[in-house]
Amino acid sequence: MSLLVVGSVALDSVETPFGRVENALGGSAVYISTAASYFTKPIRCVGVVGGDFPQEHLRFLEEHGIDLDGLQVVKEGRTFRWAGRYHYDLNNRDTLLTELNVFSAFDPKIPDNYRRSAYVCLGNIHPGLQRKVLDQISKPRLVVGDTMNYWIESTPQELVETLKVIDVLILNDSEARLLTREPNLTKAARVIRGMGPRIVIIKKGEHGALLVTEETIFSAPAYPLENLYDPTGAGDSFAGGFIGWLAKTDDLSDANLKRAVIYGSTLASFCVERFSVEGLRDLSPLKIQDRFRAFMDLSRFDEA
Amino acid sequence: MSLLVVGSVALDSVETPFGRVENALGGSAVYISTAASYFTKPIRCVGVVGGDFPQEHLRFLEEHGIDLDGLQVVKEGRTFRWAGRYHYDLNNRDTLLTELNVFSAFDPKIPDNYRRSAYVCLGNIHPGLQRKVLDQISKPRLVVGDTMNYWIESTPQELVETLKVIDVLILNDSEARLLTREPNLTKAARVIRGMGPRIVIIKKGEHGALLVTEETIFSAPAYPLENLYDPTGAGDSFAGGFIGWLAKTDDLSDANLKRAVIYGSTLASFCVERFSVEGLRDLSPLKIQDRFRAFMDLSRFDEA
Repeated sequence: MSLLVVGSVALDSVETPFGRVENALGGSAVYISTAASYFTKPIRCVGVVGGDFPQEHLRFLEEHGIDLDGLQVVKEGRTFRWAGRYHYDLNNRDTLLTELNVFSAFDPKIPDNYRRSAYVCLGNIHPGLQRKVLDQISKPRLVVGDTMNYWIESTPQELVETLKVIDVLILNDSEARLLTREPNLTKAARVIRGMGPRIVIIKKGEHGALLVTEETIFSAPAYPLENLYDPTGAGDSFAGGFIGWLAKTDDLSDANLKRAVIYGSTLASFCVERFSVEGLRDLSPLKIQDRFRAFMDLSRFDEA
Repeated sequence: MSLLVVGSVALDSVETPFGRVENALGGSAVYISTAASYFTKPIRCVGVVGGDFPQEHLRFLEEHGIDLDGLQVVKEGRTFRWAGRYHYDLNNRDTLLTELNVFSAFDPKIPDNYRRSAYVCLGNIHPGLQRKVLDQISKPRLVVGDTMNYWIESTPQELVETLKVIDVLILNDSEARLLTREPNLTKAARVIRGMGPRIVIIKKGEHGALLVTEETIFSAPAYPLENLYDPTGAGDSFAGGFIGWLAKTDDLSDANLKRAVIYGSTLASFCVERFSVEGLRDLSPLKIQDRFRAFMDLSRFDEA
């Protein structure tokens, strides 16, 4: 099924204890689209870049079969830039630079031929813009939305309105606590479901993820990577793998949502094994399936 | 099979956002023995109390079929007392009081009829004392040891010696990082295995537990409790459920170790639902089995 992805397209400069990259391809729409590209077609990417956006990055996206008709290019502008440095445990980071550039005036215009997209993934952008995207879509089958602490704190009312119109909210544990003022994650997920999304996924980094629906609580493990190089994009790769699997199978049962969470975790685990989008560059169905099964081995046990 | 438990027996005063108790039954040997009592007999408890130790607490242990021949009573002394206050998220606590009393001179003498115990669980005591216990045991089938940041920091050499003679080390994530100076838990577990224990279990509180053996990494979920009243004793209840199941089944295969981790998690989840040992008071095989299956539902997924 068709998938529409809206979010940032960025040039990231990242430093971790294991190395650094400058102006590497990044942004939520990029990670989501690339991760999802291993599951479904067409993927329609809506975002904005400046005239300085490297051709090789466009080529990377095209090589993954991502439709770029919705990627606005502001010739006289500069692409969104982000720079960060991760601490030695990779769980914390300092933002060194956020230069919004053309992204500050991003106005997501959905091309006519994108308006009937069945699956929609709203990357982490202003919640008002997320709603503006949805206003242009005709009856999507599933809308997944991401958010972050910045919007929870600075535009809470806008976010509340957006939560009413999305089906799945993906956020991390500290964001879930911030949004609900509830330290217990199971309770927090229930509170969020009361705000609108019928499906809540709380990402817990090295501890995996929690899926909460009307009838199911599912605890997905994290893949026990010994060599994690760059956490940037892990959350967006998760979202991409998740919605990519759902768009491919078009099955929204709880059993299939669980699989989608594992495919999301799978793509996130590949993402963090390399810098920038390199971990997502050369995957194959076989590699993905092998890791899916590794997740199974990791969490499976039986009765005596 | 027979199980020997050595550790503290204490009177705990605990305050959480949900209430408080004064001089309640506590201590590592108490929680371990009580949790294990639902799986195996005989359980031989070695510890020390003062003349002030309430009869009702002795009765609680006896009612759970725990053999108290090894419980030293120092008539003129006072029982070990601990007091703590948990913060609102229950993940952090302040120790308000540690009054070792008779426990400061604890010298674990293993009664003759305890020396052939097949399974041994060394609660969190001085690592030198843990070894002293083992010196008195004739060829145990499995030795499980617990430790804490205090021993890692103040008696590192003693701890290193103890690690060489135990089979299973159970510790929490921050302790694993402290012991190995390695932030990645999978690597940390590997480093610890190199120090002696062939089986390492890293407890992650609300995020479950990790079991690492020669050939297996197993990620156990945490039970999604919405009402957690008192975390005191959760780790010891985990250890008790874990070794209790192993002593019952006498099967040390990886598949059965995984089950033991889930039984440990099961007992820990019951423990924290009430104050002190109340959560462990009235369990039944059926209740335990139901929760074991709930852990299964929580983590199970299948291929499409």
